[in-house]
Amino acid sequence: MAVEFWFEFSSTYSYPAAIRIEALAQSEGVPIIWKPFLLGPVFRAQGWKDSPFNLFPVKGRYMWRDLERICEKLAIPFRRPSQFPSNGLLAARISCWFATKPWVPEFVRSVYRANFAEDLDISSASVLESRLDSLGQPGAALIQQAQLPESKEKLRAQTENAIALGIFGAPTFVVGPELFWGNDRLEEAISWYKSHQQAGAVKQLT
Amino acid sequence: MAVEFWFEFSSTYSYPAAIRIEALAQSEGVPIIWKPFLLGPVFRAQGWKDSPFNLFPVKGRYMWRDLERICEKLAIPFRRPSQFPSNGLLAARISCWFATKPWVPEFVRSVYRANFAEDLDISSASVLESRLDSLGQPGAALIQQAQLPESKEKLRAQTENAIALGIFGAPTFVVGPELFWGNDRLEEAISWYKSHQQAGAVKQLT
Repeated sequence: MAVEFWFEFSSTYSYPAAIRIEALAQSEGVPIIWKPFLLGPVFRAQGWKDSPFNLFPVKGRYMWRDLERICEKLAIPFRRPSQFPSNGLLAARISCWFATKPWVPEFVRSVYRANFAEDLDISSASVLESRLDSLGQPGAALIQQAQLPESKEKLRAQTENAIALGIFGAPTFVVGPELFWGNDRLEEAISWYKSHQQAGAVKQLT
Repeated sequence: MAVEFWFEFSSTYSYPAAIRIEALAQSEGVPIIWKPFLLGPVFRAQGWKDSPFNLFPVKGRYMWRDLERICEKLAIPFRRPSQFPSNGLLAARISCWFATKPWVPEFVRSVYRANFAEDLDISSASVLESRLDSLGQPGAALIQQAQLPESKEKLRAQTENAIALGIFGAPTFVVGPELFWGNDRLEEAISWYKSHQQAGAVKQLT
């Protein structure tokens, strides 16, 4: 039983959520499960061939300013990426395949920082390899494993699971049958978990 | 200088915002300006011919459940309207034309309750007339005035102003050059106003 954190590496609002979720959940005594998935297939299911922030520029303009404000308030570094959306496929495969390894949360944060604070190309295997190495992990070997067919299949199935759950954007927090969409709903998801866990009403979904 | 509350009567998340904004703003000593507008032209500018909650049913399903949770938490009555979106044109004309009258905030709340708690047809002149009458106002006469060409023009211009400001959904709170989109950003808009008002950085937009 946990709060599931469904995220996509190219998702802007997933960045502050990814940075702050672990510390917040730990301070509240709430377990979290990291659930990387791909937004591409989710958006295509809505008929969108690009990020809605690109398809609807007025919304995109708001989002970039809003994200800037949010990061400033949270004292999280932010630099608007020169390319958006980035391709988070390989990073998602790595964090999906090795999901239960203790280094994954720090790896996830490190990739988000690379994307949204350092404007690095997170689709690059060498960028990801050096992030893994700097966490004391064998980057090259892990990346090789993450590109095996069973790893690709795991992420594909997890993305299908996201669609089946009714997820349409990221970040989404899943607590039993309830979805909470958006970085600004993280606190509510944690609070929902705490109040419904005691009532035994939170079903295990994983 | 104020927090501008841009709302549309058919907008689901505008409902809790409309119900709670005045009491919250008063307790924080923050002035608000009520800014009804129409989402139809805004959505058409994005290429949408219906509410995105109807165009994208997965998002719609989430929204109805989310709204139900929000209303429950705020102890606001909620019944899902049998028709969505409703036609809020006449109600918007009334509240736009008479914007500065002291009965407008209570009228706005009353129409939102009719729509989202009582499942009444808020496009009906007789429904709106009885809401005005019950506030001690001459309903029939006010409705007649609200349908004069200068009233229609005022709402049309206000909706164009919304688009010019970069508003793409409702509710939106406008504080100087900053937009805050969504009921769950009301507190942040008020807090932004308070911190930037003292610094003299909030420009008057009206």
